Amino acid sequence: MVDKLLLAPGSAPDPLVLAQAVARGMLDKDRAAQGLGVQILDVQAGGAVLSMRVRADMTNGHQTCHGGYIFALADTAFAYACNSYNIKTVAAACTVDFLAPALEGEVLIAEAREQTLSGRTGIYDVRVHTNEKTIALFRGKSHRIGGHVVDI
Amino acid sequence: MVDKLLLAPGSAPDPLVLAQAVARGMLDKDRAAQGLGVQILDVQAGGAVLSMRVRADMTNGHQTCHGGYIFALADTAFAYACNSYNIKTVAAACTVDFLAPALEGEVLIAEAREQTLSGRTGIYDVRVHTNEKTIALFRGKSHRIGGHVVDI
Amino acid sequence: MVDKLLLAPGSAPDPLVLAQAVARGMLDKDRAAQGLGVQILDVQAGGAVLSMRVRADMTNGHQTCHGGYIFALADTAFAYACNSYNIKTVAAACTVDFLAPALEGEVLIAEAREQTLSGRTGIYDVRVHTNEKTIALFRGKSHRIGGHVVDI
Amino acid sequence: MVDKLLLAPGSAPDPLVLAQAVARGMLDKDRAAQGLGVQILDVQAGGAVLSMRVRADMTNGHQTCHGGYIFALADTAFAYACNSYNIKTVAAACTVDFLAPALEGEVLIAEAREQTLSGRTGIYDVRVHTNEKTIALFRGKSHRIGGHVVDI
Repeated sequence: MVDKLLLAPGSAPDPLVLAQAVARGMLDKDRAAQGLGVQILDVQAGGAVLSMRVRADMTNGHQTCHGGYIFALADTAFAYACNSYNIKTVAAACTVDFLAPALEGEVLIAEAREQTLSGRTGIYDVRVHTNEKTIALFRGKSHRIGGHVVDI
Repeated sequence: MVDKLLLAPGSAPDPLVLAQAVARGMLDKDRAAQGLGVQILDVQAGGAVLSMRVRADMTNGHQTCHGGYIFALADTAFAYACNSYNIKTVAAACTVDFLAPALEGEVLIAEAREQTLSGRTGIYDVRVHTNEKTIALFRGKSHRIGGHVVDI
Repeated sequence: MVDKLLLAPGSAPDPLVLAQAVARGMLDKDRAAQGLGVQILDVQAGGAVLSMRVRADMTNGHQTCHGGYIFALADTAFAYACNSYNIKTVAAACTVDFLAPALEGEVLIAEAREQTLSGRTGIYDVRVHTNEKTIALFRGKSHRIGGHVVDI
Repeated sequence: MVDKLLLAPGSAPDPLVLAQAVARGMLDKDRAAQGLGVQILDVQAGGAVLSMRVRADMTNGHQTCHGGYIFALADTAFAYACNSYNIKTVAAACTVDFLAPALEGEVLIAEAREQTLSGRTGIYDVRVHTNEKTIALFRGKSHRIGGHVVDI
C-alpha cells in the first residue's frame, strides 16, 4: 500500500487510491470492525461498500440480528466513506430505519454514498441490504476534526 | 424468577415484577447483549438502566469506542424498556446524537425512559453517560408485533 | 384531469397519469400548501418536485427563512410522492438537516424520491436546494392508512 | 423590557429575565412565528412553552393540520429555548415523530426543554400536545453561531 502512495514531490494522490489506502489503514486499526468480520468490497472518494455475515452471537432475544450490529455495519461504512479524503472525521449524529429483519447466516451489504459535503459537515446515506431485501436505511452526519487518518 | 411470577388464577402480575422477569428472560436469550458484557442495573415498566464497560475490542481507528457499540448499548436499553410489558416489540427506527467520545475502560450507563406509548407505537429516550459526561442521546421508535416475550 | 383518468372498464390507470392526478387533487384541497405558494414542477409514481419562493413573512429573527417553512416544503413534496399511488398515506416521522440558510426571494426546489416501499411503510428522501446550494436534506417515513386520495 | 434589563455596571443579567427578554425580542422580529399566531406561555433559561391554534389555512388534504405547521411550532419553541442565553443559535438538525393528528381549532402547546448543552452544540426536546393527547415529539440539535440575539 505504501508503494502505491509513493508520490512525486508536490503531487497530490489520486482520490481513489487515497480512499482505498485510508480504508485499509482504518480497518487495520479498527478492532471493532475486525471483530465484526467486516469486509471491504469497494471504496472510493466519498463512498464505501462493506459486507458482514450475521453470526449467532449477533442475534438477540427475537432470534434476529441485534439492531446494534446492523447499525455498527452501517456506521462503519459511513466512517470509511467520510474519512476517504484522509481528513479525520467523526460521526455527529445518525438515524436508522429498520425495514426487515436479518437472520443468522445472512450476508449484509452496506453501501455508503456521500449526499453533501460542505465545510466540516457532510451527510452520508447507507443502504444495508441482502441480495433480496433492504434491511435498513441509515443516514449519518459527519464532522471533520482535522489531522490525517493515515500517513502518506 | 419463576417463583416470583407464580400467580393466583386470574390475577395480573405486578408490572415491576413482570418487567424484571422480561428483562432477565431477554438477556438469557440475547447473545449479542451477553457478548457486549451488558449488565442490568434497573428495570421497570417502560424503563431500563443498563451498563457496559468499553473493552479494547470495542475501539475504532480513532482510539475511542466505536459508535456501533454505544448504539448497541442504547438500543438494548430501549429494547428492554419497550418489551417490559411482556408484549413482543421491535425497533422501527432510531436516532442517535454522539456528544462526547467514550474511552477504553470507561463504564457507560444507558437509561431508557418511555416518552409515549399509544396503540402499537412507542417512543423511548435513552441517555448514555459516564459519571462525568453525557456520551450520547438516543431516541427509539418501537412497534409491537404481539406474542409474549417470556412465558408467565 | 377527470378526462385523462376516464378508464375503460377494468383497466388500471397509468401510474404517471394517476400520480399527477393525485398531486393536483391534493393541492386543490391543501390550503396549507396553497398558502405557502407551493408549485408542482413534476410528479411521478413515488416522486415529486415542488418549488416555493421564500417570502418576507417566512423569515425569522435571524433574517433567513424559518426552518418550519423549509420543512413544510419538503414535507409537502414527501406527501405528494408517498400518496402518488392514490392510497391515503401519512407521515409517521421525519428528520431534516439544515445545511445552508435560505434568503428572502430565493426559490427553493424540493425533490422527493422513494427509497423503499414495503407493506404499509415507505421511506422518502427530499433534497431542498436552490440553483447554487443544498439548503436541507429531509427523510420521511410514511404510513399507509388506506382509502383513495382522489376519486378515479 | 429595556427597563427590566437595566443593569448595574459589570453585573450579569438574571438568567430568567434574560431568557424572557430574548424571547420577546425574537418574536418581535419573527414574522413567521407572528403569522402562525404563536403565543409565548413561558420562557426560562434553556426552555420555552408556546401555543398555536390550528387555523383552517393550516390544514392539508387529509383535513388535519399540515405537518409543516406542527413542525414550525415545535421548531419555534426549540429556537426560543436554545437562544435563551442571548447567544445567536441556529438549528442544525431536527427529527419529529407524528403521533396523533391535530384538528382545526385545537390549541397546540409546545414545551421545549434542554437535554444537553456543551460547547457550541445543544440538544433540545419538544413535546407538542393538546390537553388530551400528545401530537408530536421533536428533537432539535442546535449550533451557536455567536453574537447577541437582543441588545442588553
